[in-house]
Amino acid sequence: MIKKITIIGSGNIATKLSLALKQSKLNIPQIISRNPKTGLLLSKQTESVFTNNFNNILPTDLIIICINDDHICSVIKSLPDIAMVHTSGSTDMNVFIDKKNYGVIYPIQSFNTNLDIDFQKIPICIESNNKIFGEKLINLGNQISKKVFYLNSEKRKHIHLSAVIAANFSNFCYLIAKKYLDKQNLDFDLLKPLIIETAKKAVIQNPFLSQTGPAKRGDQKIINQHLEMLNDKNYKKIYKLLSENILMEYGK
Amino acid sequence: MIKKITIIGSGNIATKLSLALKQSKLNIPQIISRNPKTGLLLSKQTESVFTNNFNNILPTDLIIICINDDHICSVIKSLPDIAMVHTSGSTDMNVFIDKKNYGVIYPIQSFNTNLDIDFQKIPICIESNNKIFGEKLINLGNQISKKVFYLNSEKRKHIHLSAVIAANFSNFCYLIAKKYLDKQNLDFDLLKPLIIETAKKAVIQNPFLSQTGPAKRGDQKIINQHLEMLNDKNYKKIYKLLSENILMEYGK
Repeated sequence: MIKKITIIGSGNIATKLSLALKQSKLNIPQIISRNPKTGLLLSKQTESVFTNNFNNILPTDLIIICINDDHICSVIKSLPDIAMVHTSGSTDMNVFIDKKNYGVIYPIQSFNTNLDIDFQKIPICIESNNKIFGEKLINLGNQISKKVFYLNSEKRKHIHLSAVIAANFSNFCYLIAKKYLDKQNLDFDLLKPLIIETAKKAVIQNPFLSQTGPAKRGDQKIINQHLEMLNDKNYKKIYKLLSENILMEYGK
Repeated sequence: MIKKITIIGSGNIATKLSLALKQSKLNIPQIISRNPKTGLLLSKQTESVFTNNFNNILPTDLIIICINDDHICSVIKSLPDIAMVHTSGSTDMNVFIDKKNYGVIYPIQSFNTNLDIDFQKIPICIESNNKIFGEKLINLGNQISKKVFYLNSEKRKHIHLSAVIAANFSNFCYLIAKKYLDKQNLDFDLLKPLIIETAKKAVIQNPFLSQTGPAKRGDQKIINQHLEMLNDKNYKKIYKLLSENILMEYGK
């Protein structure tokens, strides 16, 4: 059973995951990070030892690599052959190919804030190179989340792509709306109930049924009026492309 | 004071608004609608008389026109000179120009479902052609919502445009993600906590700070991988355009 877990990284995902593990009474002997400031802070929160030396790893059952995708391969090379996973949605499991026990723990969530998050509600995708280790990872996942799935790298990548579209792109739409309102000296607060309600509706029913607006209705007059109002040529392009696709989707 | 309100229309906004008025103990003597099926249903819910005859209006303090933007002008022409408003985000108030007392009650929300909605939380934008009637409308607004604003047609149109971007476009992003997952035999449920959390974060802090994902990080490798994975050429175009704009926004 996995009881002692070493965390590599001290960014948002490392922090949220460490705190969730700690809350589930798992032991984090060590935080390893290149950033001494965030690394020391996290090691204090998790009551663990901080180091930035990858050759000085304390006894552990599992290493969780919570760093940017770009650096995963180079970090793996400098690690001894201890059971290890990464937390990336888009990095293949076979980056670990030379090690004995390895896998992935990918939480389907974006971590970028100081806001509290209930890890128990976050779906976690597990993958492993062998069954026994996979069962250990699932067991660990079950301790921090109520929704644990076993999925291969390909399916995980599909989920990651759809998560980028559903979350990162929708957030960018909120940002465009905010910037437009700022310019008109109108308060973004006006849209907040609408944003929350739209997300809730898509989740309770189905985003196909939840769609509203001029493009859904095929109201070309309003679409043209909006395109004229948008001075920013990039936002105009986005408005046009998304409206064209909504018109197509609803056969207007 | 406005006590008796006639509703024209029996679609989603007519229904949600009528029920909110009814709940605030306002009297709805009559529902006027071209659609006898939804019109009769709504008149039962509001304990009012149904008619599809615009020449047969019972005594009333206010007519609220809750119909598609395209038909507002023609309906106004067939109405007697009773105080009246429409509920559109994008139709100018001056469509009423020949009448004595007129205005707008625009709730910033999209109504398209059978889901319950708490009208008290919906911001309502009010506009009117004279001060006395405006005060009556504000008073009415305050009875159904905690957030009532007085705004001119131009500002209301800006809000409507930003609402389309923030809500309709983000919902369409959810829909693209769902369709992509459906194709891969993966469950849309996996994204639901992420969608809710993303909306909450944008509302609690600021969508600029909430942005995450490959484009925010400037991770061109993942962006290219995703573009290859997306077979649909339209979705590819949307992914590319939004990512380019996020890259620009964050100077990557």
